[in-house]
Amino acid sequence: MKNYTTLILAGLVIILAAALVGVLTYVRNQPVEVRAVEPLVEIAPMEPDSSVWGVNFPNQYDSFVKTKTNNVDTTYGGSSMFSWLERDPRQVILFAGNPFSKDYNDDRGHANALQDVRETKRLNLNLDDPKRTPGTCYSCKSSDNPGLWERLGMEAYDKMSFVELGKQVTEPIGCANCHEAETMRLIVTNPALEEAFERQGKDWATFTRQEMRTVVCANCHVEYYFKGDGKYLTFPWDNGTKVEEMISYYEEEGFKDWNYPETDTPMLKAQHPEYEFFTAGSTHYNAGVSCADCHMPYVRDGASKYSSHDVHSPLLNPEQACGQCHTDTDYVIKRVNLIQQQVADTKIDTEDAIIDAINAIKTAVTAGNADPALLDEARKLHREAQFMWDFISAENSTGFHNPEYALEVLAKSANLARQAQMLAAQAAGDTSLLATGTYYPAEVNTP
Amino acid sequence: MKNYTTLILAGLVIILAAALVGVLTYVRNQPVEVRAVEPLVEIAPMEPDSSVWGVNFPNQYDSFVKTKTNNVDTTYGGSSMFSWLERDPRQVILFAGNPFSKDYNDDRGHANALQDVRETKRLNLNLDDPKRTPGTCYSCKSSDNPGLWERLGMEAYDKMSFVELGKQVTEPIGCANCHEAETMRLIVTNPALEEAFERQGKDWATFTRQEMRTVVCANCHVEYYFKGDGKYLTFPWDNGTKVEEMISYYEEEGFKDWNYPETDTPMLKAQHPEYEFFTAGSTHYNAGVSCADCHMPYVRDGASKYSSHDVHSPLLNPEQACGQCHTDTDYVIKRVNLIQQQVADTKIDTEDAIIDAINAIKTAVTAGNADPALLDEARKLHREAQFMWDFISAENSTGFHNPEYALEVLAKSANLARQAQMLAAQAAGDTSLLATGTYYPAEVNTP
Repeated sequence: MKNYTTLILAGLVIILAAALVGVLTYVRNQPVEVRAVEPLVEIAPMEPDSSVWGVNFPNQYDSFVKTKTNNVDTTYGGSSMFSWLERDPRQVILFAGNPFSKDYNDDRGHANALQDVRETKRLNLNLDDPKRTPGTCYSCKSSDNPGLWERLGMEAYDKMSFVELGKQVTEPIGCANCHEAETMRLIVTNPALEEAFERQGKDWATFTRQEMRTVVCANCHVEYYFKGDGKYLTFPWDNGTKVEEMISYYEEEGFKDWNYPETDTPMLKAQHPEYEFFTAGSTHYNAGVSCADCHMPYVRDGASKYSSHDVHSPLLNPEQACGQCHTDTDYVIKRVNLIQQQVADTKIDTEDAIIDAINAIKTAVTAGNADPALLDEARKLHREAQFMWDFISAENSTGFHNPEYALEVLAKSANLARQAQMLAAQAAGDTSLLATGTYYPAEVNTP
Repeated sequence: MKNYTTLILAGLVIILAAALVGVLTYVRNQPVEVRAVEPLVEIAPMEPDSSVWGVNFPNQYDSFVKTKTNNVDTTYGGSSMFSWLERDPRQVILFAGNPFSKDYNDDRGHANALQDVRETKRLNLNLDDPKRTPGTCYSCKSSDNPGLWERLGMEAYDKMSFVELGKQVTEPIGCANCHEAETMRLIVTNPALEEAFERQGKDWATFTRQEMRTVVCANCHVEYYFKGDGKYLTFPWDNGTKVEEMISYYEEEGFKDWNYPETDTPMLKAQHPEYEFFTAGSTHYNAGVSCADCHMPYVRDGASKYSSHDVHSPLLNPEQACGQCHTDTDYVIKRVNLIQQQVADTKIDTEDAIIDAINAIKTAVTAGNADPALLDEARKLHREAQFMWDFISAENSTGFHNPEYALEVLAKSANLARQAQMLAAQAAGDTSLLATGTYYPAEVNTP
């Protein structure tokens, strides 16, 4: 009897020990998110310092930090600071009179946003006149913003000068731009986005989490302008978010970003309208895919699975980014390359058409005796054509986010640019204004 | 013992009977194709009468017969004989001087091909002059062709007049156009296709079956022309099958389909270049999808599974056509609708640009004192722009077979058309030739 008891007890001990090891191993292998239900540190509401959030979310934070140094290029874009003006000198002409003609570098990763906005010559061109560069320029560059907007109010924030407001801005884009500290849920933090939705009768708080994985990007990746003397950050979405709808909004507001020199065209500069472009009926958006699905795919580190915060082109990690849905990533990469090539080629044709229009209008204006009404019509088409082209050009996917829409808009843009050129020639009654390929000297006429 | 024996035997009987019923049920449920390995009738090589093939392949034949009456339309196309000239009167202008401006109906199903080619006013316009309409016009309209090409030779076939050759043609498109009777394998039957491949260094006999499920459609669904006085059926693929490559081929051959009246432009009429368009890097082609996968999907009739030969738009049976790969056909249909709308809208803008160019060149020619070299440049761009537009317009998918390519080509076409108009104005030194929207009276200017 005693032997049996010993044996049973020994057996129980072994079973319990094995169970304990099993449970401990299971717990150890849980993803960080699950463990973080009990936070290690308390994160204050709108905490600007992402490293504080990083204590509770080390994987997400470590991947976010990589955006500081992920300066890798793709064929048409990527995350280095290459100069668009050097790569495509047509843009020097297209943006003449606007600071973008002096300095237009491709954007780097999120963690560089603050440094890069402070160093761009575009703003420094204005620093002798602090009033010309408003604090509004910080709106998309810092995780200090949610707190500043709360404390100062958006109106006061936008009215401050860039230099003055800059004293209170120390952090680049970070956790607080998209997350609510108390719950980690995705939220709209930019008042301009909330107000744009409101004017459309939409309440973002009712959106699904999957929808929010796109909408939080619209805190910044949108077309916007600085409204009125207060430079109030405003999204031009009241008529809709398609490119013609934004043009009609700007028309109604009588807004222009700058006057094109010598043609005197009231121009519009497109910003980075990824949200509007992607949501305009793209196949991925319509299929329920979010920005984060491709740009922040789920990755593994040991037993942890988390959404990578090293945001960059999916072309750099297609197995993780595209491979979540597409089994053949080689096929996907070839497809993206072909689409981007088609859009890039069509973009250049469109630029040539706009430059021909610009030169024709210039000559007509210089002639002095051109019909003013026809000239104004030419300017109107120049303005529209260039904004349409810029809507595609400034958008960060070389058309891939919505290929058909990109090519449809570029086709319209080139057609309007040619009509602008024709109107200028009509205004001046001078067919010599119809020269094409005017960007390059006639004897060369190729890049 | 005796009882046991009885029991065992009775058991065996039941087991054997059940097995027999099972095997018989299995055999009964085999697809027709499998049973047809032992053909019911012998089919002669190149048998023109599809109903003979139908004895062995009743499901395929029954579905083929439906192409006689499957006259259902989609939003932008379909299988009824609606008039393109009525639906889009711009085409009356675009094809002025060509029989297509008199009669241009959409194509019906395969089984109507012979009747429809005999009844089109395009050919009847020429019947007073039998030499003008060559036998070559039957090349894509009859399953008599493989036999006729074998007996007469392609050269003699093409040299006969339409009326003369017509006496030997009694069958519409049918089995013999794509199948080898002895083996049922898919084959190239049109000598023009075989020769085009040969000139490209390709041997279709080495193609996979899946590739042939696209290539057999290229027996007819291609761009072609009638070469030389013998009206020899020829595919313009020697430089490649992209639209610019075919234009450069026609340039080298000095070929034109007709002269545009008053502008004197040497024009090209695009036929139905589905094969070239689909294979130019489309996402479905690159993913290994064949024409037959969508237009002849596998369907069931009782226990039989076969490839439907009721060829028509997949928009009419999306569950069968798209549902083989796509789980959400509602999504697919919306996607197709959006793409076709984008292409159709861009097509109309392009047509307006070409018509403006035509009217400008006409005026310049009529003026009489226009610069001949500039005028010739204008004609060259008019020719190219219209062929590019027609390549997309005559293609039977409103761009869906290759959406990005459609929009890229239309963007180029409109840009070239505007440049043609500008050259005409330069040639005449007259800016009044730069009017836009000339298709409609200025006070209306919308359809």
